[in-house]
Amino acid sequence: MATLGLIEYADASPEIREIYDDIMATRKTDWINNFWKALANDPPTLRRTWTSVKEIMAPGALDPLTKEMLYVAVSVTNQCGYCIASHTVAARKAGMSDAMFAELMAVVGMANETNRLASGYQVEIDARFR
Amino acid sequence: MATLGLIEYADASPEIREIYDDIMATRKTDWINNFWKALANDPPTLRRTWTSVKEIMAPGALDPLTKEMLYVAVSVTNQCGYCIASHTVAARKAGMSDAMFAELMAVVGMANETNRLASGYQVEIDARFR
Amino acid sequence: MATLGLIEYADASPEIREIYDDIMATRKTDWINNFWKALANDPPTLRRTWTSVKEIMAPGALDPLTKEMLYVAVSVTNQCGYCIASHTVAARKAGMSDAMFAELMAVVGMANETNRLASGYQVEIDARFR
Amino acid sequence: MATLGLIEYADASPEIREIYDDIMATRKTDWINNFWKALANDPPTLRRTWTSVKEIMAPGALDPLTKEMLYVAVSVTNQCGYCIASHTVAARKAGMSDAMFAELMAVVGMANETNRLASGYQVEIDARFR
Amino acid sequence: MATLGLIEYADASPEIREIYDDIMATRKTDWINNFWKALANDPPTLRRTWTSVKEIMAPGALDPLTKEMLYVAVSVTNQCGYCIASHTVAARKAGMSDAMFAELMAVVGMANETNRLASGYQVEIDARFR
Amino acid sequence: MATLGLIEYADASPEIREIYDDIMATRKTDWINNFWKALANDPPTLRRTWTSVKEIMAPGALDPLTKEMLYVAVSVTNQCGYCIASHTVAARKAGMSDAMFAELMAVVGMANETNRLASGYQVEIDARFR
Repeated sequence: MATLGLIEYADASPEIREIYDDIMATRKTDWINNFWKALANDPPTLRRTWTSVKEIMAPGALDPLTKEMLYVAVSVTNQCGYCIASHTVAARKAGMSDAMFAELMAVVGMANETNRLASGYQVEIDARFR
Repeated sequence: MATLGLIEYADASPEIREIYDDIMATRKTDWINNFWKALANDPPTLRRTWTSVKEIMAPGALDPLTKEMLYVAVSVTNQCGYCIASHTVAARKAGMSDAMFAELMAVVGMANETNRLASGYQVEIDARFR
Repeated sequence: MATLGLIEYADASPEIREIYDDIMATRKTDWINNFWKALANDPPTLRRTWTSVKEIMAPGALDPLTKEMLYVAVSVTNQCGYCIASHTVAARKAGMSDAMFAELMAVVGMANETNRLASGYQVEIDARFR
Repeated sequence: MATLGLIEYADASPEIREIYDDIMATRKTDWINNFWKALANDPPTLRRTWTSVKEIMAPGALDPLTKEMLYVAVSVTNQCGYCIASHTVAARKAGMSDAMFAELMAVVGMANETNRLASGYQVEIDARFR
Repeated sequence: MATLGLIEYADASPEIREIYDDIMATRKTDWINNFWKALANDPPTLRRTWTSVKEIMAPGALDPLTKEMLYVAVSVTNQCGYCIASHTVAARKAGMSDAMFAELMAVVGMANETNRLASGYQVEIDARFR
Repeated sequence: MATLGLIEYADASPEIREIYDDIMATRKTDWINNFWKALANDPPTLRRTWTSVKEIMAPGALDPLTKEMLYVAVSVTNQCGYCIASHTVAARKAGMSDAMFAELMAVVGMANETNRLASGYQVEIDARFR
């Protein structure tokens, strides 16, 4: 078989269940999405990735909604279908309204455009920006 | 010559000066950065790009700081040197603290990592995310 | 019709069959995957692409498994679904174990993250790296 | 030393000189640009790459100017500084006017924007496009 | 619900219908593809995007077929499934033959290859290209 | 100032010095490259990134040379100048010969080409690859 299966909670080792439990408790949900069930095929990657995501996405100088919208911005730029779908839902849950989503998309689209205009016109960085 | 020159205010046509004036007034600055001076080689692109950027980056459902950080997130993902430099300065001006910058970078880095884990593990989109 | 059909062996010209035969002989398989059947719509592209792939992927200073894993690394970074699926299977066939796959994914994920941290922090290249 | 040197004509082996001669004759120039001098560190890559480029960029169903502009479009999208610089010059030499360059940039910028709007809005492919 | 619905003509506001009418009139078709029906969830983005696309894709120094092929080149490089499908159809409609499509693909593939050879070999930009 | 400075060892806090010491001990070198000196502006990111890199790049099912070459493959695909320079040096140090480098580049170039041919020809994934 080419791709690995998903590790369901019922079939998971105690080590993996502990992480699944932490994901559900941290996110206040009662289910685990496929991303984590796939990473569970490699417990060290599951643990390292979850630990990093948990630390990075916790409220800090930036609020959770802003962080989720940044996640969407990167995922859209990279054309990652899974990540666009999952983080758009996460951003909605964190409070993103239709109007916020519309502006998020507008900024992401525009930034992708002007990134190419800047490089295509071979614009040199202004001294004041260094 | 391979690349086009930059159109300085002193050498600009009335049509271009009008846009330069609007850029400076809107941004409350007294100078024009190289990006616009390069686009000025093609007045329709200068006008269209500025009109869109002005409309999109205006305060709305999202505040200007959030929009500038989204711009940085996209530019970093695309590795656009000019855009990283200019929009990081713009985000600073809009109020981005060192702590905010650090979290912005952490989220952008992590999103770029998990985007690839999701695609590399060929994770299917959960029914709940559709 | 928007997309071109797949050229099956039974319907292929002698020129295309010769390449199909070489693909199957080189890869020790008895079937042709869709990628080549699509390229067969343009025989010069089919021939040039196969000749290059055959030359590049042959054992040399790097072994076939390493080359297939590099192929997966690029395909994952580019989010190419077809290439991820086909080259993950090819790497498995060349000997990639579950543990190797897990480490491959971990490196690819991390590299995509630090690529953005390096550009986002606008890190200058060290003199020793030039 | 981290990076390989450039192989100048005077220091090149007969095998490499033969390719350099063909590059200059095909392009009707009397010099070799750095890209080829770098690839010359690996003669098989130099030969394979030049053979492919020569075949692909020759006039055919598409004229040389269109091909060079397509090359610029890809290079700008990928943010490859070297390729943007070299292929913009090549497109100029093939007849690209200032007005054509301006429109090329406008299309490349817009396509990069709508690519993200399409993925961010998770637009499904219309049945008529399949 | 995670994703927004498509706004059909029958359900559209007068403002949106006006844009849909202009799209159909400009493109000489009697239907609206999903991209615009999705953007219609945010009328300002629909209006701005259509206005820009209409202006940029109009015949000018470059003909419509060349512009559509450039659009395909960018979309393929970015791996945007929706955009590849829709703009390949548009290019066909604008006159792209099978032979033109084959050469377009060959150039896009080659440019993506040499973009990486140039950066991987860390090739410096020739003085003549600046 | 737009960009953050580099934190030199002499100016670093005990927390940062501890990480710098671990980097030098792990890598058997007596200096710290700019990437880490830049991340040190945010100690949590410095710590998390180093901990992950150390864990991921340690010898395991894949040897250090293979891991460094994978790192180069991703960095080249993403056009990250800093990462290409630093990881090419690291791969050299881990034993990458000129011949290995040449083949690495050839595979990365080819994969970037066929990724686009697969998406441009809209090739469906073979049942056997699922």
